Amino acid sequence: MTDNTFGKLFSFTSFGESHGLAIGCVVDGVPPKVKLQEADIQPYLDRRKPGQNRFVTQRSEADQVEILSGVFEGMTTGTPICLLIKNTDQRSKDYGDIATQFRPGHADFTYTEKYGIRDYRGGGRSSARETAVRVAAGAIADIILTRILGTSFKIQASIVQIGPHKISSDRFDASEINNNPFFCADAQTALIWADYLDDVRKQGSSAGAIIEVVATGVPSGIGQPLYAKLDSEIASAMMSINAVKAVEIGAGFSLSEIAGEIAGDEMQMANGKPEFLSNNAGGILGGISSGAPITARIAIKPTSSILTTRKSIDTSGKNIELRTKGRHDPCVGIRGVPVVEAMMACVLLDLMMRHHAQTTILPEANS
Amino acid sequence: MTDNTFGKLFSFTSFGESHGLAIGCVVDGVPPKVKLQEADIQPYLDRRKPGQNRFVTQRSEADQVEILSGVFEGMTTGTPICLLIKNTDQRSKDYGDIATQFRPGHADFTYTEKYGIRDYRGGGRSSARETAVRVAAGAIADIILTRILGTSFKIQASIVQIGPHKISSDRFDASEINNNPFFCADAQTALIWADYLDDVRKQGSSAGAIIEVVATGVPSGIGQPLYAKLDSEIASAMMSINAVKAVEIGAGFSLSEIAGEIAGDEMQMANGKPEFLSNNAGGILGGISSGAPITARIAIKPTSSILTTRKSIDTSGKNIELRTKGRHDPCVGIRGVPVVEAMMACVLLDLMMRHHAQTTILPEANS
Amino acid sequence: MTDNTFGKLFSFTSFGESHGLAIGCVVDGVPPKVKLQEADIQPYLDRRKPGQNRFVTQRSEADQVEILSGVFEGMTTGTPICLLIKNTDQRSKDYGDIATQFRPGHADFTYTEKYGIRDYRGGGRSSARETAVRVAAGAIADIILTRILGTSFKIQASIVQIGPHKISSDRFDASEINNNPFFCADAQTALIWADYLDDVRKQGSSAGAIIEVVATGVPSGIGQPLYAKLDSEIASAMMSINAVKAVEIGAGFSLSEIAGEIAGDEMQMANGKPEFLSNNAGGILGGISSGAPITARIAIKPTSSILTTRKSIDTSGKNIELRTKGRHDPCVGIRGVPVVEAMMACVLLDLMMRHHAQTTILPEANS
Amino acid sequence: MTDNTFGKLFSFTSFGESHGLAIGCVVDGVPPKVKLQEADIQPYLDRRKPGQNRFVTQRSEADQVEILSGVFEGMTTGTPICLLIKNTDQRSKDYGDIATQFRPGHADFTYTEKYGIRDYRGGGRSSARETAVRVAAGAIADIILTRILGTSFKIQASIVQIGPHKISSDRFDASEINNNPFFCADAQTALIWADYLDDVRKQGSSAGAIIEVVATGVPSGIGQPLYAKLDSEIASAMMSINAVKAVEIGAGFSLSEIAGEIAGDEMQMANGKPEFLSNNAGGILGGISSGAPITARIAIKPTSSILTTRKSIDTSGKNIELRTKGRHDPCVGIRGVPVVEAMMACVLLDLMMRHHAQTTILPEANS
Repeated sequence: MTDNTFGKLFSFTSFGESHGLAIGCVVDGVPPKVKLQEADIQPYLDRRKPGQNRFVTQRSEADQVEILSGVFEGMTTGTPICLLIKNTDQRSKDYGDIATQFRPGHADFTYTEKYGIRDYRGGGRSSARETAVRVAAGAIADIILTRILGTSFKIQASIVQIGPHKISSDRFDASEINNNPFFCADAQTALIWADYLDDVRKQGSSAGAIIEVVATGVPSGIGQPLYAKLDSEIASAMMSINAVKAVEIGAGFSLSEIAGEIAGDEMQMANGKPEFLSNNAGGILGGISSGAPITARIAIKPTSSILTTRKSIDTSGKNIELRTKGRHDPCVGIRGVPVVEAMMACVLLDLMMRHHAQTTILPEANS
Repeated sequence: MTDNTFGKLFSFTSFGESHGLAIGCVVDGVPPKVKLQEADIQPYLDRRKPGQNRFVTQRSEADQVEILSGVFEGMTTGTPICLLIKNTDQRSKDYGDIATQFRPGHADFTYTEKYGIRDYRGGGRSSARETAVRVAAGAIADIILTRILGTSFKIQASIVQIGPHKISSDRFDASEINNNPFFCADAQTALIWADYLDDVRKQGSSAGAIIEVVATGVPSGIGQPLYAKLDSEIASAMMSINAVKAVEIGAGFSLSEIAGEIAGDEMQMANGKPEFLSNNAGGILGGISSGAPITARIAIKPTSSILTTRKSIDTSGKNIELRTKGRHDPCVGIRGVPVVEAMMACVLLDLMMRHHAQTTILPEANS
Repeated sequence: MTDNTFGKLFSFTSFGESHGLAIGCVVDGVPPKVKLQEADIQPYLDRRKPGQNRFVTQRSEADQVEILSGVFEGMTTGTPICLLIKNTDQRSKDYGDIATQFRPGHADFTYTEKYGIRDYRGGGRSSARETAVRVAAGAIADIILTRILGTSFKIQASIVQIGPHKISSDRFDASEINNNPFFCADAQTALIWADYLDDVRKQGSSAGAIIEVVATGVPSGIGQPLYAKLDSEIASAMMSINAVKAVEIGAGFSLSEIAGEIAGDEMQMANGKPEFLSNNAGGILGGISSGAPITARIAIKPTSSILTTRKSIDTSGKNIELRTKGRHDPCVGIRGVPVVEAMMACVLLDLMMRHHAQTTILPEANS
Repeated sequence: MTDNTFGKLFSFTSFGESHGLAIGCVVDGVPPKVKLQEADIQPYLDRRKPGQNRFVTQRSEADQVEILSGVFEGMTTGTPICLLIKNTDQRSKDYGDIATQFRPGHADFTYTEKYGIRDYRGGGRSSARETAVRVAAGAIADIILTRILGTSFKIQASIVQIGPHKISSDRFDASEINNNPFFCADAQTALIWADYLDDVRKQGSSAGAIIEVVATGVPSGIGQPLYAKLDSEIASAMMSINAVKAVEIGAGFSLSEIAGEIAGDEMQMANGKPEFLSNNAGGILGGISSGAPITARIAIKPTSSILTTRKSIDTSGKNIELRTKGRHDPCVGIRGVPVVEAMMACVLLDLMMRHHAQTTILPEANS
C-alpha cells in the first residue's frame, strides 16, 4: 500500500527502521529550478537531532542528509528527490527481552497482531527516529513555500505545556523559542520545565506536552472542500506523528463552551483589506484558509519507554512485569516541534499546489 | 480534484449543494452479494433528519434515499452504488443580501476567495446538508462491518457536552442515547440541555458541543503505519465534517498532563486473551487497533447562523452589520451524532480492507 | 475501490448499468467560472447516440444529460458536477437464457467469476452504454481545454479501417468525417464500408475497426515522467473503453521495422519555432508532449453479440450452443469515435493540470 | 506529484538518474513474512544487466541491489522496502555538446520544455537505466505471486521480432529463450538477428523490436472494471517503459480484421473446468482475467542514440547536425524483456490484492 506516502501533488514516501541501515524518503512533485543542496536541509535536521541536551535521548546520531537524485548542479530538476539518512549509532548488540515482551504504550503488541512479525530493534518502523525523514521533506516544502510566499510566510511551533505546567499566554515571546532546549516562548517557563523534567527523569517517569503551531503569511483560498479540508489535512498530518493523540484548530475544544456570537470571528476592512477581529477559527473557514494565521495545537503523550516497572504480557501469552532500559527522552514532545513544523509545511505546499492547479489553469478568471 | 472522495478501497464520492436539485454520492469498493435496499439505509438517514424537534433546524426534508446503480435483485454486485437524495424543501425564493454579504463563521468569504464565485443559496456546497450523503454511505459501511464482525461490533456516538454543561461520566447509560432529542446518555442531563438550548435560542445565540464516539468489537491490526494510521484517518474524517474544530483519541489532550506510568495502558491476560487495564490510547497503538474499544471525542463549534447582529464586510469591501435570518439549529452538534458514526464506519471498513489485502493474500502466514 | 474513477486532478467517477435506472458520473476538479449548461454537453452525446442509422444499435435512448450539482447561474463553481443520464428504453421484460449462459467474447463469465453475481440485463455494468458517461465528462474537458488553448486546439477521431477495408491515407479529408455514418474521412470509403457492413449484418456476423485520433494545438511539456507518461495515460484511457484491445502512439508497431535514423523525428527551426520533420513519435518524447500533433490508433474488436450460433457453457457447467438475440451494432467501433475523443480530452486536461501545478507554482522560473 | 509511483496496493516509488549517485525505489504493500534477501532479487537484475554481450550497451554496471529497509532477519515485515542500486560506471567526464543539443528521438527537448532544466548526463531521468529499478521491484512481485499461485504461475517474455525479422510461430520453443542473447524462442531466428544487428551496428543505425509476454497460471477474476481493467493497467505499465510505443492484448490490432464469430473465443467444459477454444481476448474479458493465459505484445522503437548524422536544433534555437557518440544498444528492445516481465508481475500482484480486498472480506460469500 502506498500508505507510507504523505501528500498528493507535493508528496514524500518514507522508508526505514530505527536500527536498519538507513532511513529516508522520496520527495516527489518538487518544482524545477529551485536552488537546493544538502546544506539547505541540514539546519532543519539539526534542530531535531537527539543528544543535544539532557532532556532528549542521548542516542548520538549525525543525522546527515544525502541527496541521491533529483538535483543537478545545485538546482532541482522536477524529478523525484531521494533523501537518505544513514543510521550510525545503532547499538544493536543487546535487545534483551524486547523481542518477546510487549512494552505498555508502545506499538509492539499491535505490529505483532497486524503483521505476525516485527523488527523489535529500537521500535523498528514505529520509532520516533522516522520523524527525521519528515523534517528533511518538510525542509524542502518550507524552502519552496518561502520562495512562493516571501518572507512574510513563516511556520513556527513551540511547546506551550509540559506536564501540568503551561506557558502563560501573556508571557509568549516568539524570539525566545530557539534560546532554550524546550522550544519555549518564555525563558522563565523554560526554567520551570527544566526542574520538572529533572524530577520526572529521576523518578523514572515521563511527561506529555502540548505543541502550538502558527503559520503566518498563508494566502486565503488554500484547502479543498469537503474531504481534503485544510483542517482535515492538518489533523491527519499531525496525528501521523508518533505519540500524538489530539489536534485542535483555532479555539478547538473550547469552542464547545463559547457562545455563537463570540465563536464566529467578525470581519472589518483595515487599510483596504479584510481583517478578522478574532481568530477562533484558526485561520480556516469551511476548510479553506481565510488569510488569518493558521493555528493548531497538538497533544503528545508521555514517552512510553520509562524506567518504572509495569504489567504486561509476552508473545507466549504470559503475564509479565517489565521496565524499559536504555536511553530515552523524558518528554518526546520536545523533539516533536520541528516535526510539527515540517508536517505543516508539507500540508500547506501540497494544498497550495492543488488549489493552484484548479484555479489558475484558465487564462482569465471570467469567461 | 478527487477531493470530494473519501476513502481508498471503500470510498464514496460526494456531490451536491444545499439548494440544488439533489445531493448524493457514488459508493465504490462495496463487496458483492451483500443484501441491500433503500429500506436498509433509510433508518440511518432518519436519525439525522432535520425538523424532528425544536432543537434542530425546521427545514423539512424527506431525505429519501434512492439507489440508482450497483444493486441487482436486492444484492450488491460489486459495481459502484449511486445514492441520490433529492432536495425537496429548497425555499429558494428570497436570499436577501446573502449573495453579497459574508456571514461571520461561515465559509462565504473563503469560498469566494478560492473560487471567485459561490452558490450562496443556503450555504451551497458548504452547508451541513451534505452530511446526509455521509450518513447514507456510512450506512452501507456499517451494514458490511456488521456482516464481517458480527453483533459484537457496534459504533455508538453521543453528545457529552453542550455549551458549559457536561454529562457526568458516572451517569453515562448508553441505553438512554436514543430516548431524547440530544443523543444524550443521561435523561437528567438531557433536561438541563433542553432548558439551556431554549435560552440560547431565545437570545438569538447558539451553542457548541462535544461528541464522543466508541467503536467496540473492532479486531486488532486495523490501521496502516505510518501515514494512514487509524488515528490519522479518524482525525481527518472527523475534521472533514462541518463545524468540527478538534479531535482527540482516547485520553487525548489530557495525556499531556498524565505521568508516563499511568498514560501507557498496562496489559494482562484475561480468560486466555490479552486485556488492557485502561484505555488512554483509545484502542490505538502505533496507529494500529489493539482490540480495545476505539474512542474519540470531537468538538463542534456553535452554529454560525445566529440572530444576533455582527460585524462583517460585503463583496464590495464595505463594512456592514448583519444578522442571519431563517431556520437554523441552535446547536449543530446534535445532528452531527449520526454523521460521526457514519464517518467512523467508513474509516474502519476502508482500513480493514487495506489490512486484509496486505496480510491475507498469502495462502499461509509463514513461508 | 475508486476503480470507477478516471483521472487525478480533473477526474470523473462513473456509475450505472445498462438497464438500471440511470447512468452518470461525478466530475471533480473543474475550474470555477466556466460557462456551462446542459446544452453545451448535449451535442457531444448526440454524436454517440444509438439509433441514428442502420449501422448502430436500434436501441432508442434520448441520452438527455442533467446537471445535478456544481453549476450555479450557468457557471461552474469549482465543486463537483454530477451528470445524470436516465435509462429510458430498458426493454427489460425478457432476458431469456442470458442469466445462466455465458456469451462468447462477453464479460458474462468473468464478472461471474469475480463477483459471484452479475446484473445480466443488457450486459449490466460491462455494457457499452456506460460510454455515454465518458462522452459527457469528456465534453466538459473539451470545453475547458478550448478555453485554455483557444481554437487551435482540436481533438478529432475517425475510423480508418472496418474489417479488412482501410481508408487510403492520401484520400483522408477531415472535413468529410461528420458527413457519413462512419466518421470516415473519405466519402468513397464510407460507401465501401456501408456495403460491407450490410453483408456482415445479413450473415449474422460483426466487424472490428481501427480508430485514429489526433489532438492538435497541445503545447509541449504535458505528461509526467516516468509512470504517468502521456503515452501511458492515453493507452490506459483507451484500453478502458469497451472492446478496445490495442493502442499505438505515432508510428506504433511499425516502429519495430523502421531503422533508427528514420524513426527518430528530426527537428529544424521554422519561423523561429522548433518543428518536427516527421511525427513517428506521435507528438510524445519521453512521455512528454513535444508540441507536434498527438496521434494514436486504437483497435476495437468485433461486436461480441452476433446472430451466429456458437459454443459456450452455462452457469451450471454444461456445454451449450447459443445465439445472441436482440438489437446490436454490427460494428461497435463506429460509436467508439466520440468516446475516444472524450477520453483523450480527459487525459489531456488532467495532465495539463498536473503539469501546471508543478511548473507554475513558483512566481518566477529562475531562483 | 506521486507520478513516480506505480501501483496502488502493491506499489513502488522510483527515483534516480542515469549518472547520479544511485537509482532505486521504495516498494510498499509487501505482505509480511515473505522470505526475502538481496540474493533473491539479484538474478532478475542480472538478466537485464548491460555489458553481457555485443548486442547491448557496453556500459559496465554491477547493478548490485541493496535492501535498506523492510526486511528483518531475512523476512519481510510489512513495512516499506527501499531498494538501492548504486551507479558505479558513470563516466561523467565529457558530455560534449549534449547539454545544449537536442538529440532526435530523445526526451532532451521535451524535458527542457517541461522543466526548463535537465540533467543531461546520460539522459538523466529519461535513461533506460531507470528500468533496473522496475526489475528489482518486479522481482519482489514475482516472488510473492509464486508464493500465492504456486509453480503453475509463470510470466515469460521473449522477443518475437527485430527489425523486419519475425520469429515463425511454429518454431516457438520457450525452452530456448534463455539460451541466446536475444531472449529468442528459436535458436535459428537468433542467428538471423545476430547477423542483422551486426549489420545495423556497422551502419551506425539501430533496430526496433516486438516483445511478447505470456502470464500463465493467473486465476480468473483479476482486474477492476471499468477504469482499472487488466487491459488498461497492462497497457499503462508497458507504455511507461522507455521507447515503448504500442501495446496489444491477445489478437490486438488483428481483431479489427477478424469476423465476430471467430473473434469471440468459444468455451467448453474440459475435465470439469471451463476452457477457451481460442485466446483472441488474451485471457481478459471485460477487463477481468478469464483463467486463460494473459498475452500481450509490445513494440519498442529503435534506439534513438545512433552514429548517423541527423538534423536537429540546439537550446539557442539554431539548426544543427548531430551524431550521438558513445556506447549504446543497437536494439534497446532486447534488454526490455526482463522489464516487461517485471511490470507484468507488478500489475498482476497489485490487481490481485485489490480483487482480494473487495471479494474476500466477507466471511461467507452469500448473506
